Amino acid sequence: MVAFGGNALLRSGEKGTYEQQLANVENTCSQLVNLVARGYDIVIGHGNGPQVGNVMLQHEAGKKLFGLEAMPMDFCGAETQGSIAYMIETGMEKVLAKAGIHRKVVSLVTRVEVSPDDPGFANPTKPVGPYYTREEAERLPGEYREDPRGRGWRKVVASPKPLRINNIDIVEQLARQGCIVVTVGGGGIPVVGSRGVEAVIDKDLASALAAITMKADEFYILTDVPKVYVNFRQPSEKALDTVTVAEAKRYLAEGQFAEGSMAPKVRAGILFVENGGAQCVITEAGQLDNPASGTRIIP
Amino acid sequence: MVAFGGNALLRSGEKGTYEQQLANVENTCSQLVNLVARGYDIVIGHGNGPQVGNVMLQHEAGKKLFGLEAMPMDFCGAETQGSIAYMIETGMEKVLAKAGIHRKVVSLVTRVEVSPDDPGFANPTKPVGPYYTREEAERLPGEYREDPRGRGWRKVVASPKPLRINNIDIVEQLARQGCIVVTVGGGGIPVVGSRGVEAVIDKDLASALAAITMKADEFYILTDVPKVYVNFRQPSEKALDTVTVAEAKRYLAEGQFAEGSMAPKVRAGILFVENGGAQCVITEAGQLDNPASGTRIIP
Repeated sequence: MVAFGGNALLRSGEKGTYEQQLANVENTCSQLVNLVARGYDIVIGHGNGPQVGNVMLQHEAGKKLFGLEAMPMDFCGAETQGSIAYMIETGMEKVLAKAGIHRKVVSLVTRVEVSPDDPGFANPTKPVGPYYTREEAERLPGEYREDPRGRGWRKVVASPKPLRINNIDIVEQLARQGCIVVTVGGGGIPVVGSRGVEAVIDKDLASALAAITMKADEFYILTDVPKVYVNFRQPSEKALDTVTVAEAKRYLAEGQFAEGSMAPKVRAGILFVENGGAQCVITEAGQLDNPASGTRIIP
Repeated sequence: MVAFGGNALLRSGEKGTYEQQLANVENTCSQLVNLVARGYDIVIGHGNGPQVGNVMLQHEAGKKLFGLEAMPMDFCGAETQGSIAYMIETGMEKVLAKAGIHRKVVSLVTRVEVSPDDPGFANPTKPVGPYYTREEAERLPGEYREDPRGRGWRKVVASPKPLRINNIDIVEQLARQGCIVVTVGGGGIPVVGSRGVEAVIDKDLASALAAITMKADEFYILTDVPKVYVNFRQPSEKALDTVTVAEAKRYLAEGQFAEGSMAPKVRAGILFVENGGAQCVITEAGQLDNPASGTRIIP
C-alpha cells in the first residue's frame, strides 16, 4: 500500500495547469514504478486537499455567477476521486510503457464508513472550502469558524476515524492479480450507512486501514522529506532510520512530530504495524529506488 | 448492459439539489433492481450531459471569480465519473438493501480510446460548455461556433467513435462474479494513446461497445418513452415491438428517428445485435419490471 498527498499533483505555488498536473503525476508515478519493478503489487491511496479546495471554490463561484447548486463536500470529494484517478491512470500508464512493464491500472470510486458517534462530529475542527464574511457564514448550513489570520469565516468539518472501506475485498482481489489499483481518494468519501456526510477522513489513516484489511506486506507513506526527524530543526536534530512501534509512540507522546504533518503519518504507520503489518516506510517518492531509504516503523 | 442518460439524475427544469439528485438516482436504481431480481448480472453505462455542462460552468466561474485554472473537458468528464458513480452507488445500495439482495456495487474510472484520425476531429459539431461573447471565444483555445438561437459562442468538439474501452476485461470479470459495475461514465474519458482529448463519446455507442466486448446477453437503453415510434406524432404513428436489424436500418434510412435523440440509440442497438448480441431493448426505466415492454432489436 502506498499513500501520497494531493499536492503530488497540484503543488502550492504552481498555477496547477493541466500540463503541470500531468508532469507532476508522471513524476510521482515514475518513482512508484520502482516498487512495481521490484515485484510489488501496489495499491495507491491519495489525498485531495488542494483539489477538493478548488472544487468547493468552483461550486461557490458557479452558484454566484450562474445560480448552480453548490454541492456538499462528499459530492465534491467524489469529483476529485474521478479527476485525480484519471490523472494517475494517465501518468502511470505512460511510465509503465516506458519501463516496459505490463500492468493494468484500475481506479475505484471509494466510500468509507464512519461512525455517526465519532467525537469529531460533536467538535469539528478541520477548516475546508472558501472564506466567507460573517454574515454569509451565518446563513449557510454547517459550522463556521473565524480564520485566525483574519481571512474570513470558514466551514469546519469533522475528521472521523475510518471504520470500513467499501469494496476493499475487490481492491485486494485486483491487486493480487497484478493490477495497480487506485482507491480511498482523499481518504475516501465518508458515509454513515448509505448516506454521505460532510467530513474529511485522513488519507494516511484510510490507507492504513486499507493496508490492514488487505493484509498488505508493507505500507509506504510518501512525503516531501526523505526521513522522519526528532528534535526537528534543532542542533540535536536526528533522522530516524528504524524505530519500533514503542519508540514511535514515545516520540509521539513527546510531541516530536507536527500535527497536520508528520504526526498523523507516524500514527498511521503505528496502526498498520500494530495490526500485523511488517513495516511502514515514511519517505519521499524520489527515494523509492533506494530500498534502504526512509524511516521504517517495525513491530 | 444497461445505459441511461445523465438526466436520470439531473433533470432539466429541476434545480438539481443534492436531495433531488439522490431521489432521482434512487428512483432509477429501484427500476434497475427489477433486472437484478430476475437474475441478471448488470453493468451500468451512464451519460453526463447536464453534469459535465455544470462542471464546465463551475470551472469557468472559478476562473473568473478566484483565478483558478479552468481544466479541459476530459478532466471535467473524469470529475463527473466520480460524482455520478458515487450517487449511483448510494442509490443502488439503498434499493438493494430494501429488496434484500446482496450485491456489491463497484465503479471504475473509465478511459476510452478514440482515433486521432476520426473524421469528427476535423469537423467538430457537438456544442459543449458555457456561452461566450465572440471576443472571448476568439481568445480561447479550441473551435467555437455561434449559437443559432443567439445565446453567444460555444465550444464545439468532436464526437468520435469509441474504439476500445480501458479495463473492460476487469469490468466483465467483476460483473460475472456478481458485482453491479458502473463504467463508461459520460461515454468514457476519450483518450488518444495515453493522452486525454476534448471530445464527447456517445454514451449509447460506448455502452454498446462495452456490451459487445463483454459478450453481454442483452443491452438495455433507457430513455423517457416506453417504445420507439415510427411516423412519430403523425396520424399513422406506430409503436415498434420487435424489429430486425434490417428493419431498423430501413427506418433509420427513412429518417424515422430524430438525431440527437432516438437515432443514436437505434444505431447503438444495431451495432450490438450485428456483433453477436441477442437483443437490444429500448424502453423507459419504469417498464423494466415488464419483460414484454419496450422495443426490441433482434438479428
